[in-house]
Amino acid sequence: MSLDPARLTPMANAIRALSMDAVQAANSGHPGMPMGMADVATVLWSKYLKFDPKAPHWADRDRFVLSAGHGSMLIYSLLHLSGYAHPTMDEIANFRQLGSPCAGHPENFLLDGVEATTGPLGQGLAMAVGMAIAERHLNAEFGSDLVDHRTWIIAGDGCLMEGVNHEAIGLAGHLGLGRLIVLWDDNNITIDGSIELSTSEDIEARYRAAGWHTVRCDGHDYADIQSAIDEALADGRPSLVACKTIIGKGAPNKQGTSATHGAALGEAEVAAARETLGWEYPPFVVPDEILGHWRKTGERGADVRGKWEERLSASDKGAELSRRMAGDLPAGFSLADYIAKLYADPKKVATRKASEMALEVINGLLPETIGGSADLTGSNNTKTSQTHGMTVGDYSGRYVYYGIREFGMAAAMNGMALHGGVIPYGGTFLIFSDYCRNAIRMAALQEIRSIFVLTHDSIGLGEDGPTHQPVEQVMSLRLIPNLNVYRPADAVETAECWQLALKDKDTPSVLALTRQNLPQLRSEGDMLSARGGYRLRAARAGRKVVLVASGSEVELACAVADSLEGQGIGADVVSMPCTELFEAQDAAYKAGLLPADVLKVSIEAGVTHGWERYTGLDGLNIGLNRFGASAPAEALFEKFGFSADQIVPKILDKLNG
Amino acid sequence: MSLDPARLTPMANAIRALSMDAVQAANSGHPGMPMGMADVATVLWSKYLKFDPKAPHWADRDRFVLSAGHGSMLIYSLLHLSGYAHPTMDEIANFRQLGSPCAGHPENFLLDGVEATTGPLGQGLAMAVGMAIAERHLNAEFGSDLVDHRTWIIAGDGCLMEGVNHEAIGLAGHLGLGRLIVLWDDNNITIDGSIELSTSEDIEARYRAAGWHTVRCDGHDYADIQSAIDEALADGRPSLVACKTIIGKGAPNKQGTSATHGAALGEAEVAAARETLGWEYPPFVVPDEILGHWRKTGERGADVRGKWEERLSASDKGAELSRRMAGDLPAGFSLADYIAKLYADPKKVATRKASEMALEVINGLLPETIGGSADLTGSNNTKTSQTHGMTVGDYSGRYVYYGIREFGMAAAMNGMALHGGVIPYGGTFLIFSDYCRNAIRMAALQEIRSIFVLTHDSIGLGEDGPTHQPVEQVMSLRLIPNLNVYRPADAVETAECWQLALKDKDTPSVLALTRQNLPQLRSEGDMLSARGGYRLRAARAGRKVVLVASGSEVELACAVADSLEGQGIGADVVSMPCTELFEAQDAAYKAGLLPADVLKVSIEAGVTHGWERYTGLDGLNIGLNRFGASAPAEALFEKFGFSADQIVPKILDKLNG
Repeated sequence: MSLDPARLTPMANAIRALSMDAVQAANSGHPGMPMGMADVATVLWSKYLKFDPKAPHWADRDRFVLSAGHGSMLIYSLLHLSGYAHPTMDEIANFRQLGSPCAGHPENFLLDGVEATTGPLGQGLAMAVGMAIAERHLNAEFGSDLVDHRTWIIAGDGCLMEGVNHEAIGLAGHLGLGRLIVLWDDNNITIDGSIELSTSEDIEARYRAAGWHTVRCDGHDYADIQSAIDEALADGRPSLVACKTIIGKGAPNKQGTSATHGAALGEAEVAAARETLGWEYPPFVVPDEILGHWRKTGERGADVRGKWEERLSASDKGAELSRRMAGDLPAGFSLADYIAKLYADPKKVATRKASEMALEVINGLLPETIGGSADLTGSNNTKTSQTHGMTVGDYSGRYVYYGIREFGMAAAMNGMALHGGVIPYGGTFLIFSDYCRNAIRMAALQEIRSIFVLTHDSIGLGEDGPTHQPVEQVMSLRLIPNLNVYRPADAVETAECWQLALKDKDTPSVLALTRQNLPQLRSEGDMLSARGGYRLRAARAGRKVVLVASGSEVELACAVADSLEGQGIGADVVSMPCTELFEAQDAAYKAGLLPADVLKVSIEAGVTHGWERYTGLDGLNIGLNRFGASAPAEALFEKFGFSADQIVPKILDKLNG
Repeated sequence: MSLDPARLTPMANAIRALSMDAVQAANSGHPGMPMGMADVATVLWSKYLKFDPKAPHWADRDRFVLSAGHGSMLIYSLLHLSGYAHPTMDEIANFRQLGSPCAGHPENFLLDGVEATTGPLGQGLAMAVGMAIAERHLNAEFGSDLVDHRTWIIAGDGCLMEGVNHEAIGLAGHLGLGRLIVLWDDNNITIDGSIELSTSEDIEARYRAAGWHTVRCDGHDYADIQSAIDEALADGRPSLVACKTIIGKGAPNKQGTSATHGAALGEAEVAAARETLGWEYPPFVVPDEILGHWRKTGERGADVRGKWEERLSASDKGAELSRRMAGDLPAGFSLADYIAKLYADPKKVATRKASEMALEVINGLLPETIGGSADLTGSNNTKTSQTHGMTVGDYSGRYVYYGIREFGMAAAMNGMALHGGVIPYGGTFLIFSDYCRNAIRMAALQEIRSIFVLTHDSIGLGEDGPTHQPVEQVMSLRLIPNLNVYRPADAVETAECWQLALKDKDTPSVLALTRQNLPQLRSEGDMLSARGGYRLRAARAGRKVVLVASGSEVELACAVADSLEGQGIGADVVSMPCTELFEAQDAAYKAGLLPADVLKVSIEAGVTHGWERYTGLDGLNIGLNRFGASAPAEALFEKFGFSADQIVPKILDKLNG
């Protein structure tokens, strides 16, 4: 398609006009980036991006990620102009208003064509790395006839300054993801002003140090943009295209300054920009001729997609690829047989080891899993016999050595899940969920199936001490909406939790797993963990107490119950592997498990704040409301009160008090 | 001091022996790094490091940070050998046991000479950047006679791969912190194996891209180490000294492999290492001659310190420097006058603006504050008339433009607080506490006065949408031990919370502040926020309800109370700016505020999980247990049920139900 400026300039100006008008109407938003990157985006969508607005879920489409998500009007403009069903012009006119899919930042769950929710800086790029990994992996498995696409990113200075960028580009460079192209909006401006206020970095040199190809262009010169992208395409490495732009280009009095970054231009400046751009049309009107040019860009991909559909139909791998891209597990997937074996032959193992045992079965049944660890493979127990390392030479590997890059890992996992066709799981120590917490949140917000395997889940970690001992992490992860936090008590629950995590397409999961060995407490029952909490043991004497515990403390709760029962005090033990699933049960089930008229006692080796939800103001919460210490695990559990000998008297006091 | 190998080799081997023996005795720990870096550390401590074990708090000492904190036996060895009072040899022999200050990772609160708690990778280096900032700033103010020291870091590959490293070195390069020297343990090994599994980066090129000087040396050749450090000292930029080492050097069968990284060598290999090293002494015995050499290194600094003490005594700035280094506020520091003005002339402002107003007073009274923001200066309202930007040319500036580097900022703030002499505060959006969460935790663990100014603290942020709207952040920060989370309701509480945060030397603070304007609810009272929660309004009719709220929802609670009172239902309003301080009150105070016999209702625009602690199983919790949305704030509060019209019926249902 011709890149004649006479044709492209009005197309780019359509983006500028929609962006400044929508922000002005909302009196809120970021006009600077869309106006600055309009030319680059127009070239990309007109000539390079492989997409078909009529089939936004086409598996082999290029992925386009607006990592600088605050510039959301750029992608809303592109989607509308190129012919996606949404956003409509009305929806654009209602930018940032309740009910419009044109949210302040682009949300993957609101609009087709928004491949990732972006806004938290750096993560769009880091998720794109995961998309590119998924693409190469599926290409290795399904061949170039079926999987052969690129991942494009528009990123700003903010994305590049964030630490997660370092992790992401290090991973991409190491894995040689040559089909990844970052278009950097090199405009010298951040919110606080010139980038010179805060940075002196040679960004291109840094990217090259990470194994990337870099090239520069004038981001307002169509031919130069084209030649830079062509150079990027020709290079085997991932590419950074530094597009020198003027932020807010077209707004004559404000362009090139941070005044255009994050606020409406104002009526006068919008009018002046219309003049400057020669844009004579009212807000939210794009003349037919310009719209026609844009719609043609949206029609480029139809033929390519049609041929791809034919190849898919003809391929003996087509059905399998379609299944995977739909996110469906193979029919009948279940760990029931494995759990039956555990019932027959109980195992006393750490739940991290139990997780490995379950994964050995899962990875055999599900070819779509891709495991990994942030340099704790042997500790997280995330590698099984089916998963060899993914390398530049062999993308068929189902195991990613993420390096010491927790945030980059979690974001890349999210990108894989967003891409589809694979189910990512990855491990680190639970404490380092702190390092990737916002990516875990972004998995929840984006409603995707990322599975975080977080081991060493309490002071049971032992000698490494308080920097490595989670205390508040389990409870704090429970606070994230749409995230299932599993803390299984034994090998059986671990398998059940894995099955639940895998079957839930729209909710990410955390598996909090022990370093230390735990006895197998379950020898019967069918997927009891699906209820979130369940009665593991019923009181024998008259029930006066219900003990609620999770993970490694369920064993302790059983010991406490034994002691109480020995004194004639009946005590239920409720195992609570997942409070979120328990919350979803009906009121009768919950009241039956945690009745009003008995003393309810929670036991968990973490902060107690939050357990009052189940134990009430009259209950007793056994936990750890301080940082841990460095010592062997047994010594720590004893020191911090986690023994039946120390807990039982507290319960007796409560009962008698 | 001579760097004769005949003298240094046994000194370095003493480190190796103590390290392998202590890890062997604990059967847990990391011998590889101390054994690999023993030679480099011996050169550093013998010739370069400015320190005096007899005066570990000497203000002008060099700071030494073991960023690769898992190699803790390196610093324990160095402290013991060079003559610090602790650790004793007994304490070393009890490495990683309960009660020994020789914890798995070095803890600043357990041992003098441990300048920072390290272990969470990358953060030691990032904190060291803050130390170097504090040094240059105090140097600018107090002159080279009183403040003139260096910051040294030992870092491993893990530290360098973490994203926070990118942010930290970007900041250090930009600020030209030439007195910062990183000794990189370049051993090619991570936990998973060779670094080639996960990275292909040219680390030195990356550091140079960030404005650093780099130099290489053989980390086992004393002369080469010396010449590399000399080159680093001669260069005006911050320096990375790449020390090529063999991990676990001295363990003949395991050195150079990840087998030495994180596990005891085993008795046989320890014996073989003794042979290889020619170390004939039993565990935990260092012969007098070798110990004597080490003690001499510890005596190098005494003269220098003596002369410095003389200059301090002679200087008219000495008392002020001593006050600041002690962390004491000027006598009589108080915001009472400012608060009295608010009482006289109430202000309806956003609490972020109220924070700026308070800071304008604070920064006038306290010359030791250093503010900053992660590129949200105008949004966080962190800059006042007294604070101009810190630059390479002017370190006297009291404002750091941190750039889009939340984690790097928070860690640097911690480093400043650890250095002493300054009180750091820094801003970002509350949502991005997720990006720096572990640094906030590290402030709490290290018991330091970092003050995190986190604005846009709820859906009140409005149009930016769910990626930017905190929902679970306030509650999840409350779960971190030794962290005070303040969410003030108006300009008065904001000032009170600032005063409380500044006065607490050993506890970091979060100030969660609104974007939107709030009326001033208080017109009397003296530091009521110090109780954490207090009765803002007492029921007029017979009390049936207690409304507990924080921040922007206190205004709403007052409206709800008005409506209830209008129906003859008495309702207290409790403002709860800080649950942690409330928890510290006595039982009578707490029961008086939240009595057992009334309906307790919490109102907070965030997750409700955790409020049951105050409202019980029979209470009512008004909150937001899902992600937000993009719309103007008023529309969101209405949509999500935050209006008196929607809340009052729920309360009536409860009262009648």
